[in-house]
Amino acid sequence: MTGREIRMLCRSGTLTKPTPGLSPGFVQSNLVCVPRDLAFDFLLFCRRNSRPCPLLDVTDPGDPVPRIAAADGDVRTDCPRYRVYRYGELIDEPTDLLNWWRDDMVAFLLGCSFTFERALLDAGLPVRHVEEGRNVPMYRTSVPCASAGLFRGPLVVSMRPMTPDQAVQANRICKGFPLAHGAPIHSGDPSALGIADLSRPDFGEAVTIRSGEIPVFWACGVTPQAVAMNARPPILLTHAPGHMLLTDLRDADMRG
Amino acid sequence: MTGREIRMLCRSGTLTKPTPGLSPGFVQSNLVCVPRDLAFDFLLFCRRNSRPCPLLDVTDPGDPVPRIAAADGDVRTDCPRYRVYRYGELIDEPTDLLNWWRDDMVAFLLGCSFTFERALLDAGLPVRHVEEGRNVPMYRTSVPCASAGLFRGPLVVSMRPMTPDQAVQANRICKGFPLAHGAPIHSGDPSALGIADLSRPDFGEAVTIRSGEIPVFWACGVTPQAVAMNARPPILLTHAPGHMLLTDLRDADMRG
Repeated sequence: MTGREIRMLCRSGTLTKPTPGLSPGFVQSNLVCVPRDLAFDFLLFCRRNSRPCPLLDVTDPGDPVPRIAAADGDVRTDCPRYRVYRYGELIDEPTDLLNWWRDDMVAFLLGCSFTFERALLDAGLPVRHVEEGRNVPMYRTSVPCASAGLFRGPLVVSMRPMTPDQAVQANRICKGFPLAHGAPIHSGDPSALGIADLSRPDFGEAVTIRSGEIPVFWACGVTPQAVAMNARPPILLTHAPGHMLLTDLRDADMRG
Repeated sequence: MTGREIRMLCRSGTLTKPTPGLSPGFVQSNLVCVPRDLAFDFLLFCRRNSRPCPLLDVTDPGDPVPRIAAADGDVRTDCPRYRVYRYGELIDEPTDLLNWWRDDMVAFLLGCSFTFERALLDAGLPVRHVEEGRNVPMYRTSVPCASAGLFRGPLVVSMRPMTPDQAVQANRICKGFPLAHGAPIHSGDPSALGIADLSRPDFGEAVTIRSGEIPVFWACGVTPQAVAMNARPPILLTHAPGHMLLTDLRDADMRG
């Protein structure tokens, strides 16, 4: 199925499940919606932190159509499930945003790790959490993002274990996808990022690190969501974890 | 002299002349300052039109320091001369903005054609308006920019005549500078851009087109200024034409 077909299944209420593995080759995106009076700061935050926040599309205030990423899409209905935060507190997990959307809402679509994971798998490299049927392990680091207005906080990274040789290959492959977080930001020493214990991720689930493997860390799309929640805006709308917005963009478009 | 030394001469009031040719190798930038309530739309406009509007730096509201482009710079004092527009009307051409800056002002620094012109000259390619001691000819086109809020209008292009072979070389060189307008957007037929008469530019001065030469058109940094003026904001601050802001960035950094 195409990205558009998945969107239509979400819009009709038929699909309410997570999207990993759906529509291979079509880009899945993170969604963050904030009111217009916070949109400049959030856009500036994304610009200043393009590794965790690779922007695919930004809508006009009040316009639910992501005209670059999905010309007939609607950010209010086309994810399988959403989250609604009021002053940083989760208050609803609806299957559409029709009751929450406002005339001053701006939607930000951000690139997602699924794009480069597919490229890693195609190259025969391991993606351990996929092998083990888990959610990717994610960690808050001691590395601060460049702040913008209310939006400030630490970089969040995802981790995939590999041999050092595989890490070199992964670096070469992923740096070709600047709109999907790009190359890993660090390989080898978790303490260099202020991570104390790999077996206790801050988000997602721990995975097995085999003998001879090192942890490889990528800037993670959870960063902008965590930062946006920390800013405790009056209203914040996002996709539910793993319930991404399918676009018409192709993985190859993420080469930047 | 370095970019910093030129800034200090401007700040002290010693230098009030145009900047072309000063500090070779240091990036000169266009400056546009708008109030915070227009900053989201203008940032979105620049993002959607990155060829005419290559963003080098965006300041926090009220902060006059362009921290990426010139960490000890001050956009209020470091250009030789400025222009102040009120509701789109030119009302002042001061040598500093100290009387006009506001706590909610956001400064946008945009890449400039001087960067790629130096690369063209280094490659032995002609830059006719430099040869003839004129300002580059610029034309409003029939190509609309992607709009954002109040900010909308046609793409403005600059033109440099070359032989077709030279145009191919220029294309190869300039596409390596995405933060200085990148490759030409068109070569050969002015009417394809809606330009009726090359001898009557909308800005700058006409230059000689020799036998065997074709006009080569680049997206121009006058575009965002023209669009910002057309939006008639209550207050708009820019550099005066040719009186650019010198940065600490080097031409090589504009390779993106």
